[in-house]
Amino acid sequence: MSTIPVESFAAGRWVAPGEGALTLKSATDGRDVARIGSSLDYAAMLDHARRVGGPALRAMTFHERAHILKALAQYLNERREALYELSYDTGATKADSLIDIDGGVGTLFVFASKGRRELPDDHVYVDGAVEQLSRSGSFIGQHVATSLKGVAVHINAFNFPVWGMLEKLAPTFLAGVPAIVKPASQTAWLTHACFRMMIGSGLLPEGSVQLICGSTGDLLDRLGGQDVVSFTGSAATAAMLRGKENLLRNSVRFIAEQDSLNASILGPDAEPGSAEFDCFIREVHREMTAKAGQKCTAIRRVLVPQAHRDAVVEALVARLDKTVVGDPRDEATRMGALASLDQREDVRAKLAVLESEARRVFGDDSRLSGVDAERGAFMSPALLTSDDPDGAARLHEVEAFGPVSTVLPYRDLDHALQIANRGEGSLVASVFTHERDVARQVVLGSGAFHGRLYFANRDTGKEATGHGSPLPHMVHGGPGRAGGGEEMGGIRGVMHYMQRTAIQGSPDLLAGITKRYVPGAQTREGERHPFRLRFGELESGMTLWAGPREVTLQDIEHFAEFTGDTFYAHMDEEAAKANPFFPGRVAHGYLILSFAAGMFVDPDPGPVLANYGLDNLRFMKPVEPGAELKVRLTVKQKTRRNDDYGEVRWDVGVYDETDAQVAGYELLTMNAM
Amino acid sequence: MSTIPVESFAAGRWVAPGEGALTLKSATDGRDVARIGSSLDYAAMLDHARRVGGPALRAMTFHERAHILKALAQYLNERREALYELSYDTGATKADSLIDIDGGVGTLFVFASKGRRELPDDHVYVDGAVEQLSRSGSFIGQHVATSLKGVAVHINAFNFPVWGMLEKLAPTFLAGVPAIVKPASQTAWLTHACFRMMIGSGLLPEGSVQLICGSTGDLLDRLGGQDVVSFTGSAATAAMLRGKENLLRNSVRFIAEQDSLNASILGPDAEPGSAEFDCFIREVHREMTAKAGQKCTAIRRVLVPQAHRDAVVEALVARLDKTVVGDPRDEATRMGALASLDQREDVRAKLAVLESEARRVFGDDSRLSGVDAERGAFMSPALLTSDDPDGAARLHEVEAFGPVSTVLPYRDLDHALQIANRGEGSLVASVFTHERDVARQVVLGSGAFHGRLYFANRDTGKEATGHGSPLPHMVHGGPGRAGGGEEMGGIRGVMHYMQRTAIQGSPDLLAGITKRYVPGAQTREGERHPFRLRFGELESGMTLWAGPREVTLQDIEHFAEFTGDTFYAHMDEEAAKANPFFPGRVAHGYLILSFAAGMFVDPDPGPVLANYGLDNLRFMKPVEPGAELKVRLTVKQKTRRNDDYGEVRWDVGVYDETDAQVAGYELLTMNAM
Repeated sequence: MSTIPVESFAAGRWVAPGEGALTLKSATDGRDVARIGSSLDYAAMLDHARRVGGPALRAMTFHERAHILKALAQYLNERREALYELSYDTGATKADSLIDIDGGVGTLFVFASKGRRELPDDHVYVDGAVEQLSRSGSFIGQHVATSLKGVAVHINAFNFPVWGMLEKLAPTFLAGVPAIVKPASQTAWLTHACFRMMIGSGLLPEGSVQLICGSTGDLLDRLGGQDVVSFTGSAATAAMLRGKENLLRNSVRFIAEQDSLNASILGPDAEPGSAEFDCFIREVHREMTAKAGQKCTAIRRVLVPQAHRDAVVEALVARLDKTVVGDPRDEATRMGALASLDQREDVRAKLAVLESEARRVFGDDSRLSGVDAERGAFMSPALLTSDDPDGAARLHEVEAFGPVSTVLPYRDLDHALQIANRGEGSLVASVFTHERDVARQVVLGSGAFHGRLYFANRDTGKEATGHGSPLPHMVHGGPGRAGGGEEMGGIRGVMHYMQRTAIQGSPDLLAGITKRYVPGAQTREGERHPFRLRFGELESGMTLWAGPREVTLQDIEHFAEFTGDTFYAHMDEEAAKANPFFPGRVAHGYLILSFAAGMFVDPDPGPVLANYGLDNLRFMKPVEPGAELKVRLTVKQKTRRNDDYGEVRWDVGVYDETDAQVAGYELLTMNAM
Repeated sequence: MSTIPVESFAAGRWVAPGEGALTLKSATDGRDVARIGSSLDYAAMLDHARRVGGPALRAMTFHERAHILKALAQYLNERREALYELSYDTGATKADSLIDIDGGVGTLFVFASKGRRELPDDHVYVDGAVEQLSRSGSFIGQHVATSLKGVAVHINAFNFPVWGMLEKLAPTFLAGVPAIVKPASQTAWLTHACFRMMIGSGLLPEGSVQLICGSTGDLLDRLGGQDVVSFTGSAATAAMLRGKENLLRNSVRFIAEQDSLNASILGPDAEPGSAEFDCFIREVHREMTAKAGQKCTAIRRVLVPQAHRDAVVEALVARLDKTVVGDPRDEATRMGALASLDQREDVRAKLAVLESEARRVFGDDSRLSGVDAERGAFMSPALLTSDDPDGAARLHEVEAFGPVSTVLPYRDLDHALQIANRGEGSLVASVFTHERDVARQVVLGSGAFHGRLYFANRDTGKEATGHGSPLPHMVHGGPGRAGGGEEMGGIRGVMHYMQRTAIQGSPDLLAGITKRYVPGAQTREGERHPFRLRFGELESGMTLWAGPREVTLQDIEHFAEFTGDTFYAHMDEEAAKANPFFPGRVAHGYLILSFAAGMFVDPDPGPVLANYGLDNLRFMKPVEPGAELKVRLTVKQKTRRNDDYGEVRWDVGVYDETDAQVAGYELLTMNAM
């Protein structure tokens, strides 16, 4: 079988490996798999992204980009088999490939869905509430975010060739920013194959994605303040890259996600035999062996109550002893090979360092059977333990990036958190507890050291997604040693590729910028009731005034009797007067809402199909018997849902005869196109 | 008059200037004002902050810290006069001091208020919505934020000795993080005086604030992943500091707010004689002369339609010509001195650079009268203009940090935005326009280059707060040349000193962590109706089930007739069936709400004083005639408001006879203590 030419995709052209290309070897049998290394014009790539890709992406709304992501996810999903096949030579088992390939595709699906549900069908993202900056309201504030006008450079690690690319691409694409993807060379043939499918899909606009297989040359020296570098890998490489003078001088955003010494804590309440104990053992074992321990989130430090240390070690050793290490293509194999012989060499060296502070209780490579450990990067999982986690230093700072973990005993929960925090920042820590108080104490005592805290127990059972699995909904990243960056976390991850801008101005200009009505902006009343207008005909600011209608004491009494809501503030003048908020008997809030609807509703069938909700209702002034109410209904915002319907958010104000506002809310209707 | 000894405040002790202290001179007459420079034990300062200040702050809730901020603001507010007096020698007029001193105190007030309104009375901040991570809901996600366990180092600029300190301290304190403040030496006597008041107030916990007057020594080399550096000043200093190997290696957060080449744009619609034109001229003049142009937000580039360039120059020159430069103590003075002779030297040198690409149309220091420009750092404001903004390079990258601006003509709005973006990132740009479309085009075309966009026109009038005034509600900072950082922006600014952590676990543990009920967490029904319990007796999770009550067709018809809401889905079986969302006639949403209240309300006077609002109401399933409804009312969250009342947020679910949920919402009540 000939080797795969791992091509780059630069400025719209595929570029084959050139002179001086490197040969990449199979992790399992050492045969030549691929060649990598092209000579590229980095300036032209950046120019292509900035001048072709960026404008094409920014011409689309968030929803349009989300639709493309969904189609891309479906396209890749149908072609997974070819990727699994290529993945075996990275040392990955089928189960490992599910994490990488299916996990990557799943991430696209989640971002596609969140893009449509949580972002507007527009180009401007509205961040947070309107800020009242002036007394009369003629000058207000609002934060918005818009797409950066630069390029995202994604520098990915070797361990997840597909997921690593897609988890960065999804939020970047949704943000409207073109990306240049640089996979780690070691496993780039798999990234390359997936990338080639993406281009082959024809779904992505010209210039929106490019691929560098090989060196990034002077790429980083050419970045400016509208560009972003998103890096996954080792702390040493991250420190070297982020210190580049050009990046510092231009304040280039640098998102780092670094390997860290993640801890898992068996809660003080989790006795051997408990559901939490069993779940903990399973999880530690899985994290040691999945992807042969080459996960940035893998559990390196296993923190257990002193009294249960022996039980934990015994249970783990028993499981490890049954773990089949071998050819990842073999279904009996639980753990495949490390990514390369060099990688195994590095893990063995780090293991030796750890053994200066801890003793090995499992892990003897000479016991491996049925594998060619000379040509394939196989190794046994290794379990260590130390009696003195406080005296140790290297156990908290040296990571063997392979199937290696150390069991550390703790005295009490405070001590456990101290040990966990010695890692000086991690991507994730997990805690196996059924006690609310333990969970809260962990968050207060150690939360600031972790990007993610994973709690598992008898209640979470089989639905728990695993200590080591970053989810697109949740932030992935962590402080300190973990790099200080954040990725994903839903729409938060999209914002890393957008610029937040504080907007100050009149309500009317603000409404023009965001395409949303804000109180104080111009409204206009049309000849037709807005409930008679189809979704496409409605525009923010369109307004209906309805009413007036008097609220009588009989209305209040009748409503109380009919609904059963005989709260004293509606029924008893003396008692109501004694209430600090009421002048005497007042109308029910729900009576006000109901009368308001009675005033503005247009009864006949039409484009408004349903009232499906209501937000931010506040009662501002008590309504006394005799008050005369009127209501203003203004189109605030429209969100297309599908070809048939769209949601309309209405700003509603209810006013009394003195023009004082008595209630305000946002009404949600589903409208026909 | 003797010179002021500018002391540091380190590890709880005042440290006087020592050997090698520098003498600081008055900006207006060159006399010796103060001495600065202490020898400090930086390791001891960090230790004091981490071991004494941090724990003391974290023991308090957000609300408790906010109360201290408010008391501190009141304390300083009563002592402003002494600070004004010291401020004159920095070259500042009384108007300048109002920006600095009153602006600083005002920032404390706003953060105190936002802290109580927008943060919980707790230690854990809840960020965003619950994420559904599993099918049955036994495993869910939630982001929270907790206080960093390190120290904030604030490095401030010379131009706002008081505001610069307080705008960083307020969010840091609210976040529960101790701070070490390092003012620029040049004007540190004023910062020192204010800081001394703060310590004198006795309001701040031991170790929560420290002050370095003089060098920071090896302080930055001792920071770790839980620490933050927040820097305001020049790009060159920022690049030097943020590149420190220790900061990069430990991923220390570095927030930079750098001087930038801010632009102001006269909109294409703003003809001479219009309100926008006049407002623009006033604003540019104010920004040139306030604080003698030494503001990081000052307008450096004045972008105007080609056709109006001469009119703008003429109007600005006329105003500048009437601008009195002189002793800031003199009430006739409009513009005081620069901060020092060195500062003036620097501005003159930069002005010479700008003059290689633009011609000076105003600004002749020889015309200054009545000032001693030998000993005082006085200079005339200088206005330049260029015919070729596209050909110019230095005009877009060299900032004279004083009363210097350049008028640049543009062809059309796109061209104006191109020119603005040539600044490669700024803190703020302003636009004077009355056109919605212009505003939106500016946001889409240039928003990503600015931390803030300020729109002023006839509508904003006197309420507009000024191009150059950062407000505590809005983000201050900007991309690229402006440093890439953010400060303030309300609670966003607090988050810079907290760690966001993704939490995954069971609803019940999550409720324990956040002290908020989440669906799926344990509930408990008590013997007493929860409306009979006082605020202090209620706990999240306490639950009342009420009902059932049947909804009859008569109820629906009666409600329609009574309220006037005769929408066809309630009244006309055939028409309702044709609606894609309804099976036939259904109950009004407001009828469901009203009946739910009728079921759960306890009518007699008691601790519940008022229903003041409702959030996140969604109707989930249509209710047909004959349905039997019941309702669950669960305490979700409590927020103390004052000594008498607190807000209670209730999670309400309405269910039908099949136990399907038909509606869900959050009800807000005001409850007595």
